[in-house]
Amino acid sequence: MVTDIKTYIEENQSRFLEELFGLLRIPSVSPDPQHKNDMHRAAEYVCNALLEAGADAARVLSTTGNPVVFGEKTIGKGKPTVLVYGHYDVMPIEPVESWKSPPFEPEIRDGRIWARGANDDKGQLFMHLKAFEYLVRSQTLECNVKFMIEGEEEIGSESLKEFCTQNKEMLSADVILVSDTSMIEENIPSITVGLRGICYFEVEIAGPNRELHSGLYGGAVINPANALAKIISKLTDDQYKVKIPGFYDDVEEISESERNELNKTPFRLEEFKDSIGIFDAAGETGYSTLERIGIRPSLDVNGIWGGYTGEGTKTIIPSKAYAKISTRLVPHQDPEKIRGLFEKHLLQIAPEGVNVVVKYLHGGAGYVSPVSSKAYHAASMAYEKVFGKKPIPVRSGGSIPIIAEFERLLGLKSILMGFGLDSDAIHSPNENFRLNVFLKGIETISYFYSFFSE
Amino acid sequence: MVTDIKTYIEENQSRFLEELFGLLRIPSVSPDPQHKNDMHRAAEYVCNALLEAGADAARVLSTTGNPVVFGEKTIGKGKPTVLVYGHYDVMPIEPVESWKSPPFEPEIRDGRIWARGANDDKGQLFMHLKAFEYLVRSQTLECNVKFMIEGEEEIGSESLKEFCTQNKEMLSADVILVSDTSMIEENIPSITVGLRGICYFEVEIAGPNRELHSGLYGGAVINPANALAKIISKLTDDQYKVKIPGFYDDVEEISESERNELNKTPFRLEEFKDSIGIFDAAGETGYSTLERIGIRPSLDVNGIWGGYTGEGTKTIIPSKAYAKISTRLVPHQDPEKIRGLFEKHLLQIAPEGVNVVVKYLHGGAGYVSPVSSKAYHAASMAYEKVFGKKPIPVRSGGSIPIIAEFERLLGLKSILMGFGLDSDAIHSPNENFRLNVFLKGIETISYFYSFFSE
Repeated sequence: MVTDIKTYIEENQSRFLEELFGLLRIPSVSPDPQHKNDMHRAAEYVCNALLEAGADAARVLSTTGNPVVFGEKTIGKGKPTVLVYGHYDVMPIEPVESWKSPPFEPEIRDGRIWARGANDDKGQLFMHLKAFEYLVRSQTLECNVKFMIEGEEEIGSESLKEFCTQNKEMLSADVILVSDTSMIEENIPSITVGLRGICYFEVEIAGPNRELHSGLYGGAVINPANALAKIISKLTDDQYKVKIPGFYDDVEEISESERNELNKTPFRLEEFKDSIGIFDAAGETGYSTLERIGIRPSLDVNGIWGGYTGEGTKTIIPSKAYAKISTRLVPHQDPEKIRGLFEKHLLQIAPEGVNVVVKYLHGGAGYVSPVSSKAYHAASMAYEKVFGKKPIPVRSGGSIPIIAEFERLLGLKSILMGFGLDSDAIHSPNENFRLNVFLKGIETISYFYSFFSE
Repeated sequence: MVTDIKTYIEENQSRFLEELFGLLRIPSVSPDPQHKNDMHRAAEYVCNALLEAGADAARVLSTTGNPVVFGEKTIGKGKPTVLVYGHYDVMPIEPVESWKSPPFEPEIRDGRIWARGANDDKGQLFMHLKAFEYLVRSQTLECNVKFMIEGEEEIGSESLKEFCTQNKEMLSADVILVSDTSMIEENIPSITVGLRGICYFEVEIAGPNRELHSGLYGGAVINPANALAKIISKLTDDQYKVKIPGFYDDVEEISESERNELNKTPFRLEEFKDSIGIFDAAGETGYSTLERIGIRPSLDVNGIWGGYTGEGTKTIIPSKAYAKISTRLVPHQDPEKIRGLFEKHLLQIAPEGVNVVVKYLHGGAGYVSPVSSKAYHAASMAYEKVFGKKPIPVRSGGSIPIIAEFERLLGLKSILMGFGLDSDAIHSPNENFRLNVFLKGIETISYFYSFFSE
């Protein structure tokens, strides 16, 4: 006879970790083609874990890229269906020398699991497998569950989009459940209800066909680096508003009450500034820092280069200058439309006499999820039961383009039950996941199913 | 009995080249500390060549850097004195693989001398030694001659400034004669009567203490790359005028007649544009291309960098952004004053919330020489006699800071009798010097002495 969830976790904790460690030991680094074989090993591992946890069926399905693991457990046709999404691929480990313990030799230290993927997303994904295992073994699962675990999240989920298009029926569900985001603090649970979209460009400004002597030509030739600076300066005004005509046309104006709610999120400006070493947190006039990140679009230069960048002096006019520029979009802003506006505006503001090339590197729409849905309520109650506090709905400034794609391709909203913390150092050396949070996450997820099936 | 100059050159041509090749074979690359010993070898070689050519005395004099060769021939106390300046150091040879023949194995091919230093400045310097030799041997030298040949021209002439300060009396003369510049074309002789000055800065804009995620922070934090672009854009207006307050205060307004004279310089705008692959030669409104380069100051970004500059996308806000920015100055603009104005203005236009550091990397004043001087007339007549055309007085856009320093430290004007051509590829692979021009240069210089002594 299986006991309650708390006891079950306590009794099986060391086995859970052993199983997770097996997955963490596989270096499934998707951005590095050398790890192709490890991608398949990780997919097989997840597939087996699903079957052992109690799935009726689970398979590793080929795509044009890394395979997708699909598994399911059917309780009954009339029951609601939850589609769990996660990913088994991880980010590169460089710089390796900064890791205190080897990234693919997981260990527990200071109450944390240390390894690449400990949080993102192998750790968070494993909470779902273990919550599912409990529900199956305790015979308390009251809804159908499907799992879709991909291996290209860190490189843009291209194969998964195709997979969704081709398997719409197999993936039919009532909601998608995802643990791949963060909470505000360990004791302040939150649910991400908004994500920003993104449009990412590379701009090339070409002037003379070679570097020129800045004495013999300076003053008579348009300098592409100066021209690039002029162009960038015209993309935003001194109140940090984006000056691209039409850019704000589709931006949703958020109601006063929703803004008030958003501004109640625990946030200390001085701490925010200190944590990143700045002395003034400037941004679009008329909005708070939380609003600037959560509900307003932004435009940033991500990189800029051209001409002589070595030591000392070299008196040249560069031949070309480049910038990587991206905008973060809020829901309803269409990345394709913004792309067109950006490209058109850039050509319009460029000085005569230089050649402008705009490359669109990638993009994705923003996402917003209503706090009134049944799934949101279930998640909220689950957090409250385990953490003792109602979770705060948060609009993240980041982008997970696949979430908007799920809505577009499958017609499904997602519930982002993230358990990460800022200190988890995802994508960085010494990635870790609090053991305590890992165990509480399993508990929370199992309650989600109970409340969602009620 | 020594014959006329033309015959003398004809008869001794192969010996001249043999002697020059001996100097060209010494790899006296001043920017590379590995060639320290070669600097001394080259200085000794020049010293011996001076003695063989007919100097009363010549010595290799130590400095805190590379040695200076000083030699002289005194004709009489009442006679005018010419101080010849040149340099025996050369630029590095990289990229080596681009040379068609080894840079330190000089050879004659297609009517040209091929070697590093063939023109700059070993070739041009050697013309002076051989003209001097003729005048001494033919007993037609009617003025006193001094030679000051340095080994740090390509790295800023720092030791020579000290040398001038310490040896003012030894260096006393009526004029300095220099061949280290160019002519317009092989058949269009010119004399450089103006050089621009320079102020070179490196600007650092510091924002957050590390790269930030552009989603989680974008819109709420000042981006140092965007800030740098704004700052650079405010340094010039859309009519390409420098917007630094006070920048134009000391710029000499050139008379209409002098501007008309300047604009008579042979110049074909279409050829100029084609030669550097641009389709619009824009610059300060109200001035021609020649004026923009010759008599107007300019401001150029020489290099810019910050954030992610690799392949593909990285969604970050840079921690810092940098630019190398230099201004070219016209005579009467004081580099120290411009430095102060630039630094003050940069701090004023920087957005609040970023930290701005301006480093002054180097500077030097511009130079202008009157076309009415006795030395200018002598040079002009010498060119006319050999090339059949009166030389055109040219204001070069480039900078040779030591020429302005000579005026400041020694109180002497310089006559820039340059014989280089654009096709000589100085500082580049396959540097060369037309044999024909080398021989004509010797002839022209010998006539300079005749006319100057009249």
